[in-house]
Amino acid sequence: MDRLIEKIAELQNPTVAGLDPKLAFVPEFIKAECFNKYGKTLEGAAAALLEFNKRLIDALCDIVPAVKPQAAYYEMYGWQGVKALCETIAYAREKGMYVITDGKRNDIGTTMEAYATAHLGTTDIDGEEVDAFGADALTVNGYLGSDGIKPLLDICQKKDKSIFVLVKTSNPSSGELQDRKIGDKSVYETMGEMCEGWGEGSRGRFGYSAVGAVVGATYPEMLRELREKLPHTFFLVPGYGAQGGGAEDAKYAFDKNGLGAVVNSSRGIMCAWKKEDGATERDFAEAARREALRMRDDLRSVIGAMGA
Amino acid sequence: MDRLIEKIAELQNPTVAGLDPKLAFVPEFIKAECFNKYGKTLEGAAAALLEFNKRLIDALCDIVPAVKPQAAYYEMYGWQGVKALCETIAYAREKGMYVITDGKRNDIGTTMEAYATAHLGTTDIDGEEVDAFGADALTVNGYLGSDGIKPLLDICQKKDKSIFVLVKTSNPSSGELQDRKIGDKSVYETMGEMCEGWGEGSRGRFGYSAVGAVVGATYPEMLRELREKLPHTFFLVPGYGAQGGGAEDAKYAFDKNGLGAVVNSSRGIMCAWKKEDGATERDFAEAARREALRMRDDLRSVIGAMGA
Repeated sequence: MDRLIEKIAELQNPTVAGLDPKLAFVPEFIKAECFNKYGKTLEGAAAALLEFNKRLIDALCDIVPAVKPQAAYYEMYGWQGVKALCETIAYAREKGMYVITDGKRNDIGTTMEAYATAHLGTTDIDGEEVDAFGADALTVNGYLGSDGIKPLLDICQKKDKSIFVLVKTSNPSSGELQDRKIGDKSVYETMGEMCEGWGEGSRGRFGYSAVGAVVGATYPEMLRELREKLPHTFFLVPGYGAQGGGAEDAKYAFDKNGLGAVVNSSRGIMCAWKKEDGATERDFAEAARREALRMRDDLRSVIGAMGA
Repeated sequence: MDRLIEKIAELQNPTVAGLDPKLAFVPEFIKAECFNKYGKTLEGAAAALLEFNKRLIDALCDIVPAVKPQAAYYEMYGWQGVKALCETIAYAREKGMYVITDGKRNDIGTTMEAYATAHLGTTDIDGEEVDAFGADALTVNGYLGSDGIKPLLDICQKKDKSIFVLVKTSNPSSGELQDRKIGDKSVYETMGEMCEGWGEGSRGRFGYSAVGAVVGATYPEMLRELREKLPHTFFLVPGYGAQGGGAEDAKYAFDKNGLGAVVNSSRGIMCAWKKEDGATERDFAEAARREALRMRDDLRSVIGAMGA
């Protein structure tokens, strides 16, 4: 997790920009260009996503430390969309950004190893080592227990990568299972403790391990409780902005050094131009930058300096 | 779920063949051909997977009702591998097989809608409706609660598709979370009851809803318990063969009509030639067919006739 934390401290910004490029979010002039070239096809849609992402990355890369492409929005456009995911990851890394693929992958044994290899490792093709997706971090679902997490730990260590395990998600129905009590502890607390355990061997120089947790900004009390109970687990915090969470909610995710979490905004940044008076879709990248700066300052105002 | 059940009854075979084509499982002569053409690249690997799958599908399609490609083994070979997944799905469907994409996808709201659209629905590209992956069913993880499942139900209804939610998985550590008690019920039982609830509106002519459950053959007692408690939930049962479960274990997944479940075998079928005396890799497809027939007869011997 050190590389992400260093980048956050360098830019004094604990934001990750979600790249969830539904076609409906992509400006018409980009779509028109791409449909003109490839038709209204999966290839045309994928080209539009990639162009949209590249311009957002260009506008954000010197002020935002990380991006989080959401795999679902690429899979929706077939293998062509998945190719755009691959190219987005490469482009963002080229620009120095830390890339968290939001795939919530989960499986067991050799199958989980395959996901680990796919998203964080290198694939062996008869002796040749090739990056398949090559992100820095991956979100995962821990419902299957250690068999689903251990295959990732090895790659995290060897390749200096990270994972974020779903602990308490930001959605309204997250409590249906996650808040239920196992003895005197909730399911999310139990999952959080499992994260601390899985991360034991990989603590870095800021005290955080390679095993992070997803904890929603929409449940600030639980965020506060988990920050206290999971001192070595770095948080990925969704729910800021469009989902209703604010800096006052997200602040509980941070430790006394202003570290401990990265806060996500997707639509808030991608579609910022829609909320600016007089802005048009041509301004989407500049508006995204302005919103990212506003969010950074909003978070800074409650957290203070990041990293002692 | 009716289309799957009809196919099972037609072939009197409740087997799903897992297509988990790790490159190490693909015969050398197929790899040599593909590497010769495309080099030792992701493209070459993907071509080998597709060729392997096609020959397996040809050998199985008149005796096995369904295939289950495991997404991880395609993602491991980049977008090129994901393209091979897409082509495998299309090929199997062309040959009349029911296709369950094993992706264990999970997310919330519009993001889960994107996964539903990607794997089971059709993608809207500015008015054009296109299949992205076009499978018949998808495995999903229900840790996020109803917000992660409801976006799928609509597509299941409209397009006659199904989902399988992870309830009790076949791996050794599945109990770390799934067996823990919430009050007097285990987590897996709670998840199973949620499946019954989610499926309420989509029961078909055999009494089973579009919301199935994954329950491992490696826990036969729990299989028996869940079959009783979840009368409208069709089971996808992994763990037969390589993971140690047998027909005697799997039989608890079935109802009195010999229906109620489909049992998966992946390596057992794909790599059957390795266990046959005197077989070489050139015999892989015929050996897969022989193993599929043996497995069918093994299951039939404990279940009897399927569908009254």
